[in-house]
Amino acid sequence: MLIENDFLAGITRFLTRSPKQINHLLEADAELIHIGKDCILAITTDTIIEEINEGLYTDPYQIGWMSATVNFSDLAAVGADPKGFLTSIQITRNTPLFFMQSIMDGMHDACHLNGTYIVGGDTNHCKSIQIGGTAFGIIQDGKTIMRKGCRPGDQLYVSDKLGLGSVYALEILLKNQCDYAFFPRARIKEGKLIRQLGTCCIDTSDGFFSAVSNLMFINKIGIRIRHDINELIHHNYYLTMLNASLPPWFLLAGPHGEFELMFTVSKKLEEELINSASEFGWHPIYVGEITKEPLLKFQLEGTDITCNPDDVANLYEISAGDLDNYIHALLNIHNQWKRQPLKKSEKIAGIMT
Amino acid sequence: MLIENDFLAGITRFLTRSPKQINHLLEADAELIHIGKDCILAITTDTIIEEINEGLYTDPYQIGWMSATVNFSDLAAVGADPKGFLTSIQITRNTPLFFMQSIMDGMHDACHLNGTYIVGGDTNHCKSIQIGGTAFGIIQDGKTIMRKGCRPGDQLYVSDKLGLGSVYALEILLKNQCDYAFFPRARIKEGKLIRQLGTCCIDTSDGFFSAVSNLMFINKIGIRIRHDINELIHHNYYLTMLNASLPPWFLLAGPHGEFELMFTVSKKLEEELINSASEFGWHPIYVGEITKEPLLKFQLEGTDITCNPDDVANLYEISAGDLDNYIHALLNIHNQWKRQPLKKSEKIAGIMT
Repeated sequence: MLIENDFLAGITRFLTRSPKQINHLLEADAELIHIGKDCILAITTDTIIEEINEGLYTDPYQIGWMSATVNFSDLAAVGADPKGFLTSIQITRNTPLFFMQSIMDGMHDACHLNGTYIVGGDTNHCKSIQIGGTAFGIIQDGKTIMRKGCRPGDQLYVSDKLGLGSVYALEILLKNQCDYAFFPRARIKEGKLIRQLGTCCIDTSDGFFSAVSNLMFINKIGIRIRHDINELIHHNYYLTMLNASLPPWFLLAGPHGEFELMFTVSKKLEEELINSASEFGWHPIYVGEITKEPLLKFQLEGTDITCNPDDVANLYEISAGDLDNYIHALLNIHNQWKRQPLKKSEKIAGIMT
Repeated sequence: MLIENDFLAGITRFLTRSPKQINHLLEADAELIHIGKDCILAITTDTIIEEINEGLYTDPYQIGWMSATVNFSDLAAVGADPKGFLTSIQITRNTPLFFMQSIMDGMHDACHLNGTYIVGGDTNHCKSIQIGGTAFGIIQDGKTIMRKGCRPGDQLYVSDKLGLGSVYALEILLKNQCDYAFFPRARIKEGKLIRQLGTCCIDTSDGFFSAVSNLMFINKIGIRIRHDINELIHHNYYLTMLNASLPPWFLLAGPHGEFELMFTVSKKLEEELINSASEFGWHPIYVGEITKEPLLKFQLEGTDITCNPDDVANLYEISAGDLDNYIHALLNIHNQWKRQPLKKSEKIAGIMT
């Protein structure tokens, strides 16, 4: 089980559920509430703190953009049509006005890209900058998609090749600069199609392994990836990792994801979904198959791997956010998988420079 | 103009508005968005930070209670029916689990009192505890009430006698304890009646003078209070202030309000509103009348006062949160009003002990 989910289960154990709520805890990326005949409100809240504190986002425009996008991505994963965004802004007493306005610009543009608007918010003074937000959307036809819903035999896809979130985080944290811009867009249009034809959906905001962990835990299923796991990574980021002498699959492990959608579809509707997707130029990436046995299976450079994805997804949390420890822990797993002895530790901060 | 409003106007100046949004900036306590035929979503977000940092709320149950109530009070002021609450929790890595659970209990109970539920949320680690929230509700009949809407001649009321918020804040900050519990409830039922019959509504979450400033600024009107302004204060809190040798009206000035509703009604519908209110045991307190001239007029212990309420409402912000400075600034105004020379400064922290 993911550490965060365990914590959430603990603090919400004694709460009463709304009889109008469709999803239980963890079952969907956004909360789904019946508000009228066939009309469902999708609503989600998410705050950007760690990413600012750790220096991942320093540009105010990007901070604003991300504060909206993380929330819209959750709406995308339930296939909702965004109807508005509220922001919750904590700034210090010394935050310059232009910085604040640049945050608003980024937020505004991300809303605009998703066909909606900033409709309200709240500002407070605080010791550090934190930007939270709430996005809401509507589902008019009563049809829902959640993290929960896939069955053995369903086919697993991601909306695009992966790795941008992690390669961005690694380069920024190790080199203080990145060759790739990080302005992901929420997959709203894709999510709406998945809602019509798919069986479950989650975004990769916390990374590929975290998404896999969630789907496996919630649906009590396993996943068999059909090709080498490295094939899920975008070619450019794959090369960046090779150049840095790091195993490319680390980009699937990191907790800073790329905001793609991971979804399943039954074999019966698979062709219809793929055809409908291509009509608007979207070509989902095939991942593999949902299995009964609750294990993750894949190939890594010719080696067959069977694992519990929690062991990878929880590593950053266990490393308490220390990047050196984290990468060593990943290298440890990599070498175990490859049945190679652990190499003498290197100064990680030097690897990518 | 209130300093906070000036700031908000500055950072939102270049944003595009949603064509579905009914209220403009500052015009309503909650945002009002058309989401279907006659169906309006009311949604609001508010975070508790300063109150925790300044030691106003230390009990976790109360922190949870207030994080929900501040948001439900905004829904009350637009007469919406609460449908759910999302929480945004920032805790430190050292926050004990029982503390966290007690926050959730307070939040849960405040939701329950307002006929609704915690439907979701987000947790993050941060350097200090901050609890934010988003409440949403529905208006089914298309009829709205906002801060904007009153006209000269309308009658001004508050939902109950005032002063609890300020007397609580003063006692906690000066004596570290308070004779009065502070667990305000949102005036949901009252707000729904006001929405049917009233012309404008705002809650007193930021205090009486702040609410008056807002109504005057948004509606471009003035207010004439009919009785001595001290009569708006609950008898108990009035006595507390006399015992502390502080002018009771300071309780109307403070920025920590009591979450009552301040509203107007036309003379034509006044009787119907009062009669309907009394049917469920509610007896609104008469304040005075809306006037054309944009000034606040009232009597203070026999003296006629005419003022700009901003001068009082902005004082805490101008004092940068320093309580000694703030109370001296209030005493200064009091003495100007009473045409009394300013007394030699006393150690304020000693006044109430």
